[in-house]
Amino acid sequence: MTATFRNGLPRYEILSEQALATIDAGWRRLISEIGVEFDHPRALELFAGAGQAVEEGVVRLDPDFVLEQAARAPAEFVVRARNPERSVVVGGDHMCFTAVQGPPFVREGDERRDATFADLERFIRLSHVFPEIDVPGSVSAEPSDLPLDSRHLDMVRAALVLSDKPLIGSQISLDAAEDSLALARIAFCDDLAEPSVLSNVNVNSPLRYDGRMLDALLVYAAAGQPVLITPFLLMGAMSPVTIPSALVQQLTEVLAGVALAQLVRPGTPVVLGSFLSHTDMQSGSPGFGGPEAAVGLLCSGQLARRLGLPWRSGGGGLTTSQTVDAQAAYESLHTLLPAFLAGANVVVHAAGWLEGGLVSCYEKFVVDIELVRMLRHEFTPLEIDEESLAFGAHDEVRHGGHFLGAAHTLERFRDCFYRPLLSSTENFERWTRNGSLDAADRAALLWREALERYEQPALAVDVREGLDEYVDRRRRELGD
Amino acid sequence: MTATFRNGLPRYEILSEQALATIDAGWRRLISEIGVEFDHPRALELFAGAGQAVEEGVVRLDPDFVLEQAARAPAEFVVRARNPERSVVVGGDHMCFTAVQGPPFVREGDERRDATFADLERFIRLSHVFPEIDVPGSVSAEPSDLPLDSRHLDMVRAALVLSDKPLIGSQISLDAAEDSLALARIAFCDDLAEPSVLSNVNVNSPLRYDGRMLDALLVYAAAGQPVLITPFLLMGAMSPVTIPSALVQQLTEVLAGVALAQLVRPGTPVVLGSFLSHTDMQSGSPGFGGPEAAVGLLCSGQLARRLGLPWRSGGGGLTTSQTVDAQAAYESLHTLLPAFLAGANVVVHAAGWLEGGLVSCYEKFVVDIELVRMLRHEFTPLEIDEESLAFGAHDEVRHGGHFLGAAHTLERFRDCFYRPLLSSTENFERWTRNGSLDAADRAALLWREALERYEQPALAVDVREGLDEYVDRRRRELGD
Repeated sequence: MTATFRNGLPRYEILSEQALATIDAGWRRLISEIGVEFDHPRALELFAGAGQAVEEGVVRLDPDFVLEQAARAPAEFVVRARNPERSVVVGGDHMCFTAVQGPPFVREGDERRDATFADLERFIRLSHVFPEIDVPGSVSAEPSDLPLDSRHLDMVRAALVLSDKPLIGSQISLDAAEDSLALARIAFCDDLAEPSVLSNVNVNSPLRYDGRMLDALLVYAAAGQPVLITPFLLMGAMSPVTIPSALVQQLTEVLAGVALAQLVRPGTPVVLGSFLSHTDMQSGSPGFGGPEAAVGLLCSGQLARRLGLPWRSGGGGLTTSQTVDAQAAYESLHTLLPAFLAGANVVVHAAGWLEGGLVSCYEKFVVDIELVRMLRHEFTPLEIDEESLAFGAHDEVRHGGHFLGAAHTLERFRDCFYRPLLSSTENFERWTRNGSLDAADRAALLWREALERYEQPALAVDVREGLDEYVDRRRRELGD
Repeated sequence: MTATFRNGLPRYEILSEQALATIDAGWRRLISEIGVEFDHPRALELFAGAGQAVEEGVVRLDPDFVLEQAARAPAEFVVRARNPERSVVVGGDHMCFTAVQGPPFVREGDERRDATFADLERFIRLSHVFPEIDVPGSVSAEPSDLPLDSRHLDMVRAALVLSDKPLIGSQISLDAAEDSLALARIAFCDDLAEPSVLSNVNVNSPLRYDGRMLDALLVYAAAGQPVLITPFLLMGAMSPVTIPSALVQQLTEVLAGVALAQLVRPGTPVVLGSFLSHTDMQSGSPGFGGPEAAVGLLCSGQLARRLGLPWRSGGGGLTTSQTVDAQAAYESLHTLLPAFLAGANVVVHAAGWLEGGLVSCYEKFVVDIELVRMLRHEFTPLEIDEESLAFGAHDEVRHGGHFLGAAHTLERFRDCFYRPLLSSTENFERWTRNGSLDAADRAALLWREALERYEQPALAVDVREGLDEYVDRRRRELGD
């Protein structure tokens, strides 16, 4: 039914049994002694009703109760797309990839400016064109040119109209969550009995869920729609400065949210989110793509697997770099490759993220697509059998010859190796003759070509009209 | 005694027992049925004397005999440096790193030109300054301004004088190998009873050792000096186009060379070399840093470990990129990180390689140093114990606060995270104010600063004079 990529290589696990036991004792102590604050009466009511200790907005949870709740969530589920061939499987050895979400700025070549709705539309089109992106999302650029209270309507409609891949709904407010579900019901022409709208709820770390995020979590969970619950931990700011303490805090926060989702509606699909990086203690700025983040990913994946739930890696392609340079590339690969090694099921921000998430960048989008493509190729297992050893080719070529013209080579040369999108193997003379374009220059050509290839997917006229009518009506109601 | 980095994370292994058995059967068949050509009468004589089938320059080897010979080589050994604190351990969980070796061109900023002896001297100084480079090597730039027949004298002397880290001798000819040993004897003031001069012998793949390389192998092995034996396999050109066949060929070639070294002198330290990448079948150019190379590294490490011998990863920092751009960075990390995952013992070309090895680049050197530093930090295991969980910090900060001023943070903020050399976390305004320097621009400042920090290590006057006298005499003898 779906063609979601399967990560066929083994998982790379670095935590010993003893380390796992220490971390396990740690989150149990933290969740039961310090607890988690929930800034929402309904959430507190649900926890109190389930026998958990609630005091001044803080819930101290019984860890065994929490695990019982988590066990109600499915280990694997399908998120429906408008085009069924583009539905995605979340969980198991599947990996799906979303475009960057959230930035208020865009970078196009050397220009950095406020993002507009036209930018968002272009990023959705790019996400639709490249098969490496499973889920475009509705906020690859935050449109500063649209009114704040109603822009979620335009954004979610754009995601539904410009692509037939799965939707990420808005979670910025109660209205936004409800409108996202309403628009999805129109697009799917049904009541969304199946998981059809992904959402992402960030924890207001440390150890706190704020009211707006809980509004969204409660709406999506009540509708049985899958929620990615993500502690956003920059060590040194939102968590202590050691990786083990951040892992314990991450488990505490995410499991408390998972338990709440199950109390709202048992069986609600959830994804254990992680977004763990460090603060540069000299500048006070967030740092991405460093060794702490890589180790955090490896550990988070291993911990998530023990809980038997799908796992979101913080992101692929994370970097603090200000431009599409060497740093942007190595930091991005240094978050994406560990996500593959650790068996991430959902990789958010897999293409286009720049400048610590403040910028969506067109050229970076193409660099990241190359990285995702390359790693998807790499994490597809080799066939190793007698035939693959090509003894006959050796028998033909013998000693000191070459294989360029061997029969074995001629049969396979078209697709025996990964064929890059962006990377160049041109020799220096040819590269110079062709304009000495570096990777960012070539990426600028490639995203423009991709936009030219874009074709808007079919959508029934009455569905399109239904979406437009809903948007117009709600825009008036919201006063914009 | 030495401070060689230890890779403390687990090895990442992707070959199943069945795949290992298939590959094992493969090299046994290839080495015994097709065999290996040795273009050197002494090598053929040694193999024939040991009962192996020699016919028209080709030796068909008994695989069990080969393994018996390989078992004579040490699993781990120390390579002495002129400064004993800088000696390196080769084998086990140790990793050592050499600078780029071999390029005829250099790139400095936007200028690409023929390499000179002054460039070689600068690269040796840089390798001496940065602690991430264990072994500078004597050919980080091939000095086109020195006469061909005698330049090895200047190069090896420069490596011995400008740094007190371990030496890589020359292997371009019989003379060059013997001169390297002679110069090392003068520098160490002894007969080199201990391993003191590393050398690298490339196989003339497929399945052939040429006369010059065998001259060097025989000289270094007879002196008990460690030899890295490296099949250079660009799949599609020097090997068939499948990874399993290349792995089988690599084992065949390297084990035949290892056996020869042991026949010359039982117990000769050897390193199993691998240098496995692909040919771009469109352009016919070599490709580096792609998924085939990464998988090749993971498999090669696993296979080497089963043989119980130290292993050289092809290189860290390999790329086909023509400049220090995003491609250069992601391809480089994509060869270096797999080398760590696979447990490489010697990483050649760890800093400065560009353009498929045709260019030594100053700015790329700094980018690569950052990558090596970052991964050395990452592959140092975490302390995970009760104390590392920082429960007290949570107790202090509680819900929704921040940890920037917590006691736990203040005690640790200076060294709790990796501190980058090159990467920037500056916000956009500050970055712009500081000149909008990208990673390559900043690298250009950093290598110049490093050269200013360089101090030539002490060398006794009589040793220096001895080296100079030897070089002058041999230069005359060689007719330059």
